[in-house]
Amino acid sequence: MASSLTAAYPWTTSPLISCAPMRLIANASLATAVSIAGGLGFIGAGSDISTLSSELSKSRDILNKAKVSTNTGVLPVGVGFLIWGAPLADTLAILSKPENIPAAVWLFAPRHPNQLKDWADGVRKASSNKTKIWIQVTSVREALEATKFASPDVLVVQGTDAGGHGAAQGAGIISLVPETIDAVTDYCNSSSSTPLPFFVAAGGISEGRGAAAAICLGAQGICLGTRYLAANEATIASGYRDAVLRASDGGSTTIRSSVYDQLRGTTEWPTGYGGRGVLNASYRDHEAGLSFEDNKKLYDEAVASGDKGWEGDKARLTTYAGTGIGLVKSVMSAEAITREVRNDASKILSGAPVSRL
Amino acid sequence: MASSLTAAYPWTTSPLISCAPMRLIANASLATAVSIAGGLGFIGAGSDISTLSSELSKSRDILNKAKVSTNTGVLPVGVGFLIWGAPLADTLAILSKPENIPAAVWLFAPRHPNQLKDWADGVRKASSNKTKIWIQVTSVREALEATKFASPDVLVVQGTDAGGHGAAQGAGIISLVPETIDAVTDYCNSSSSTPLPFFVAAGGISEGRGAAAAICLGAQGICLGTRYLAANEATIASGYRDAVLRASDGGSTTIRSSVYDQLRGTTEWPTGYGGRGVLNASYRDHEAGLSFEDNKKLYDEAVASGDKGWEGDKARLTTYAGTGIGLVKSVMSAEAITREVRNDASKILSGAPVSRL
Repeated sequence: MASSLTAAYPWTTSPLISCAPMRLIANASLATAVSIAGGLGFIGAGSDISTLSSELSKSRDILNKAKVSTNTGVLPVGVGFLIWGAPLADTLAILSKPENIPAAVWLFAPRHPNQLKDWADGVRKASSNKTKIWIQVTSVREALEATKFASPDVLVVQGTDAGGHGAAQGAGIISLVPETIDAVTDYCNSSSSTPLPFFVAAGGISEGRGAAAAICLGAQGICLGTRYLAANEATIASGYRDAVLRASDGGSTTIRSSVYDQLRGTTEWPTGYGGRGVLNASYRDHEAGLSFEDNKKLYDEAVASGDKGWEGDKARLTTYAGTGIGLVKSVMSAEAITREVRNDASKILSGAPVSRL
Repeated sequence: MASSLTAAYPWTTSPLISCAPMRLIANASLATAVSIAGGLGFIGAGSDISTLSSELSKSRDILNKAKVSTNTGVLPVGVGFLIWGAPLADTLAILSKPENIPAAVWLFAPRHPNQLKDWADGVRKASSNKTKIWIQVTSVREALEATKFASPDVLVVQGTDAGGHGAAQGAGIISLVPETIDAVTDYCNSSSSTPLPFFVAAGGISEGRGAAAAICLGAQGICLGTRYLAANEATIASGYRDAVLRASDGGSTTIRSSVYDQLRGTTEWPTGYGGRGVLNASYRDHEAGLSFEDNKKLYDEAVASGDKGWEGDKARLTTYAGTGIGLVKSVMSAEAITREVRNDASKILSGAPVSRL
């Protein structure tokens, strides 16, 4: 195992900034832009690999043009999978092609921890150990389980402030990251066969202050999702993006729920997960007792109305985003976001700005 | 306004560590121990001032003996009030006695923001501006409201990881603290009459890593509650304390709810608040549909059983604690806790321990 997180991804600069593998949103253009800026971008395959080959091919073209050097014979991007649904054998057939081997895969939401082992073993074998295994966990218990079953290279420790899917009930990274690191470190110290993974913090981090905080909590890297919704390179409807830019006070204006998935027809998630999104009329009506059928009808009408479905008090369309939504103020390039977060975090960690202590 | 937070409390050392004014638990012995260690301890008066005079008198005795110097003619502890219930005039009659004037009051949970103004004005007048006004807020909106109505010296920004009472729905400090600081700073910059308050972060911070993270987020001070439940000086049943020491993985094992208040008969809180506590049989039975009457009967039986009411799978007694509960591992003196958190935070902020970045 490398002595530092960035050493395993030689084009990256410390502290490592990654973009979450947001399904439908984090495609080749976003993921490669993050890597070009010295981070590690993840393509969000989710449970559906129908466009994976073409997104990897697009990534290859962009990265070749940008001359991102890896030394290691991997494509300098990662791919994220929801392993409750993604087909392992077909995925390995794609990822094992020499031109496709990604720097990392990001595994989330198994139906059983055995799936983590199957995927980690499969990817390691298919890539001759070139592809690093990142596993997203939402609790100390899951972190220990993932470590025991799959010995990941990286644990992504996701707090409940995160947008999109996470534990229906959970802690923020302020307590979750240090407790997870302690528990996993204790386990690895007592196990002769399990090296200590690196830790990446996710959930509620929108800019340099949160990133610096995550490093103080003990993480070696940082993952941002919500902030990249406002990247030029995100694949996102303008109504969705505008709703993100308008929102503030994310603790009050976002909520974790399963109702948004239900309305979108995404019903295959294992139990115990929920998606955090902007609290809108769909949620309010659900809470007020509107039947699913009537709510779904209104939702489908909103879908048909396009970007207007995200506007005003009657906005109904799903707007997955984290509590850090109020810190997202403008659309920027993913490269600029990545560099800004990294540079601001480094400045804070070097002690500059704490002036009124 | 002072140029630094600690300058206003001359016996304190930076970064300022405070203990939350936990009702029934944070009495003279805990509050003074925190101040003696160079922090700022708060007595938790809550909504009931019947023991306030005697707790202040005890505090005076302890602090005189310890020779904590203030220069400023105040008692070097604070007092916390739930202002939806505490009686203002009677409180001021106690706090205005020259020997009682506290270094700070901590105001939380008004029924209307006007109450914040009434309390802030009253305390400032009664103490000839010697007592600093700390106001606890749980959202950006509340922070702006408190700033406009009462121009606090300190805003305590409480994230949803906190134990005990807070917003029923909210964000962790990872996003809440920086967004609140930005919004309040913008407001104060545009207002000629409102000086910028200092910011203290609360919620999920149990030790040095969380404290250092809070400083990176922009806070000047840190407040801990759950960690001090395991202080020798806390007024707490041994069953409660043991339950805190046993618990881990607080995102999964604690929950914010109003059911614990209902069972204890604490029913006067304004709407919009809930208390985070260890998830136990009272909560599970409530969720499973047990009637309040039957649940209350079981609760009262548990109360009668004493410390056993906190034990095992059938534990029913309210155990308010935050998601940082898994980082609380042993009983220590409040002085040792205060010094450890401050020293560890300082070490992390000086760049020492981030070795594997």
